[in-house]
Amino acid sequence: MKTEDNGKVNFSYHTKVVRNPKLERLQYNYLFPEISARELQHIRKYPNARVISLGIGDTTEPLPDVVASSMANYAHNLSTPAGYRGYGAEQGSKELRKAIAETFYKRMGIKDEEVFVSDGAQCDISRLQLLFGSNMSIAVQDPIFPVILALSHAYIDSSVIIGQTGDVDTISGRYQNIKYMKCGPQNGFFPNLSDTERTDIIFFCSPNNPTGHAATREQLEQLVQFAQDNGSIIVYDSAYAVYITDGRPRSIYEIPGAKKVAIEISSFSKIAGFTGVRLGWTVVPEELLYLNGFPVINDFNRIVCTCFNGASRIAQAGGLASLSSQGFKGVLSLVDHYKQNAEILLQTFESLGLKAYGGINAPYLWVHFPGSNSWDLFNEILEKTHIITVPGSGFGPAGKEFIRVTAFGHRENIIEASKRLTALLS
Amino acid sequence: MKTEDNGKVNFSYHTKVVRNPKLERLQYNYLFPEISARELQHIRKYPNARVISLGIGDTTEPLPDVVASSMANYAHNLSTPAGYRGYGAEQGSKELRKAIAETFYKRMGIKDEEVFVSDGAQCDISRLQLLFGSNMSIAVQDPIFPVILALSHAYIDSSVIIGQTGDVDTISGRYQNIKYMKCGPQNGFFPNLSDTERTDIIFFCSPNNPTGHAATREQLEQLVQFAQDNGSIIVYDSAYAVYITDGRPRSIYEIPGAKKVAIEISSFSKIAGFTGVRLGWTVVPEELLYLNGFPVINDFNRIVCTCFNGASRIAQAGGLASLSSQGFKGVLSLVDHYKQNAEILLQTFESLGLKAYGGINAPYLWVHFPGSNSWDLFNEILEKTHIITVPGSGFGPAGKEFIRVTAFGHRENIIEASKRLTALLS
Repeated sequence: MKTEDNGKVNFSYHTKVVRNPKLERLQYNYLFPEISARELQHIRKYPNARVISLGIGDTTEPLPDVVASSMANYAHNLSTPAGYRGYGAEQGSKELRKAIAETFYKRMGIKDEEVFVSDGAQCDISRLQLLFGSNMSIAVQDPIFPVILALSHAYIDSSVIIGQTGDVDTISGRYQNIKYMKCGPQNGFFPNLSDTERTDIIFFCSPNNPTGHAATREQLEQLVQFAQDNGSIIVYDSAYAVYITDGRPRSIYEIPGAKKVAIEISSFSKIAGFTGVRLGWTVVPEELLYLNGFPVINDFNRIVCTCFNGASRIAQAGGLASLSSQGFKGVLSLVDHYKQNAEILLQTFESLGLKAYGGINAPYLWVHFPGSNSWDLFNEILEKTHIITVPGSGFGPAGKEFIRVTAFGHRENIIEASKRLTALLS
Repeated sequence: MKTEDNGKVNFSYHTKVVRNPKLERLQYNYLFPEISARELQHIRKYPNARVISLGIGDTTEPLPDVVASSMANYAHNLSTPAGYRGYGAEQGSKELRKAIAETFYKRMGIKDEEVFVSDGAQCDISRLQLLFGSNMSIAVQDPIFPVILALSHAYIDSSVIIGQTGDVDTISGRYQNIKYMKCGPQNGFFPNLSDTERTDIIFFCSPNNPTGHAATREQLEQLVQFAQDNGSIIVYDSAYAVYITDGRPRSIYEIPGAKKVAIEISSFSKIAGFTGVRLGWTVVPEELLYLNGFPVINDFNRIVCTCFNGASRIAQAGGLASLSSQGFKGVLSLVDHYKQNAEILLQTFESLGLKAYGGINAPYLWVHFPGSNSWDLFNEILEKTHIITVPGSGFGPAGKEFIRVTAFGHRENIIEASKRLTALLS
């Protein structure tokens, strides 16, 4: 394909089909491609360097034996007459729905039938957008740096695709018709709800990526009250909830009344190392109703049955094993590994006199370098320590003094990174 | 949940969010729930009967050893430091994309990069609808019985969800703004294109479900020419193509010029018995351009990266193994098993003097019972033979003299079904 600069190609024939104008509005974000390009350049320059990535957050540690074995056994059994299985339920197996409800929503009154198993949170966000359609008004957290949300969880991009937004403002990089709720250190990473406009949908991610902030109980009580007062629906992303260990809520349903106003999406990716296995879930309570009294769960069930055909049954077997008592012990020790990584990094930055947010209830650190330019920082760190980070300005102008660092990695790499950063920055 | 007749529930609180009007247009189809209810009733009446299902088409035979082993090994290796893998590419692994291109599109000039691995054809149809958006005009085959398409592949329902259609006509059960292209025995199961209106998108499934008709080369040449003349995009569903053994095209890209006008979706489900494993693919050629010259593949790639996070890597390992030389032999012997089932059923109906369509290049038979009512037929067959079928009238009024029969099943069940049907109908 001979691509010209404008992305068009030199073929003589074209159809008469008009490109979807919603897709024309989508902005391309060059942050991660740019990081990859600089990494490649660096490797060419220093072919023998041991490059350590604290960039993209991806799990690195092997699965617990019992989880891998359960998937291996399930797969093996598919070659036997007794073990072969065809289509499963679109909503996931009864056993797994029950295990999710019992493990994550005990005493919150979430029923098995309100849990929909998926192939991951990102995919379910897109199915939720199909559910909502193009006429919804939406709000997203603005953890100083709005675009990260589009990168990490596609809230914004999927909203653009479904048609909820207007055009992008070329100066701010923000879309019309999306309300950005500022969440920074100045307000405890929680929006000032008294001056927040009502929207139909409020996307809220806790623990947050990239700031690493886990909302407190009081904050979530405010959020649920705000949604009830406005008749809004909260889409609560709890993909990192298992990293919370200081008593803050791990689910929005810990807040009384949340079932009337909230959908919760979550994932086995960062809990159980399933980034490549693909498994997640979404909870839609029966109590959540549209203005006309129609249950949202009925429509979501229809979307799941029409636009999805169930998560791989092998992945579901792994999910079930990871929630068994032995499996969950293994899973928690994986989480503990990454949390210790985060602690090492946090101590490193603090001992260097730098302020780092997150890292306690989340596998991300958001590190402040007052007066710096984050791309310069990225370059200097890469050049002098062979460590990949993520420059904050890639997430918007307000991120220009920050870098994001992931705690996902092998321990020896984290320790080595800590040494190199200490040598550079002390 | 206390459900009232109108689907609303008796909770006092409701949000102020208006239900997506597109979802309000969706019609519920009670065919398969009704069949299940009657099956249940039958089992209660005859608790000792050996019920045989020739209803829903689901694979029944174990996977080839080499395929199951490759998935088991991949899963097992995820518990080892050397074998652990995190996120894969959203578009699928390079190896699998290459193997699909080489196995199914040899000498058709399809590049590896034009193949997007998915978790199944149904999911990709929904992603294609996100690609197209709500302003597209669409056409679907009307194999006498339009609703089957909504059931089997969600073309219509996903169009309704994305907003391409108007309201449903309560008498015909058809949606406004969808063109239904009649395909019956009278026209060789191929639409009369000379009186077919232009649409942006043409959904075309071959071999067809339920009629079992595989389009001939001449028919597909006409279709491609028609699309070129009109500047339309064909979405070609080839999920059953591997059942074609009489030389008819297995891919739309066997037709010269198709790459300029056609997307092809396909699946490992019915090829390799992956209905529960979940793996498919979509081909978007670089030559396929919108009116403004922009490549469709660029937008589809964006949709895949935003709304999908890749098929399970374990399933992908199985897909790759099923395309290895040993694996593909095993896969073809599975297909052969179902084709022999179809032949047994075809001979059964023919020996009874009944006209059955399909069953040669497809795993479905569409059996004509002139003068009959298909629900009566369904009931009589169930009552007297304990066999579940699918009544044609469930697919629309024109199906009232037909039943659909699947060839997916264990051989002993097919032979037993054949005996019982012969005893009943001869």
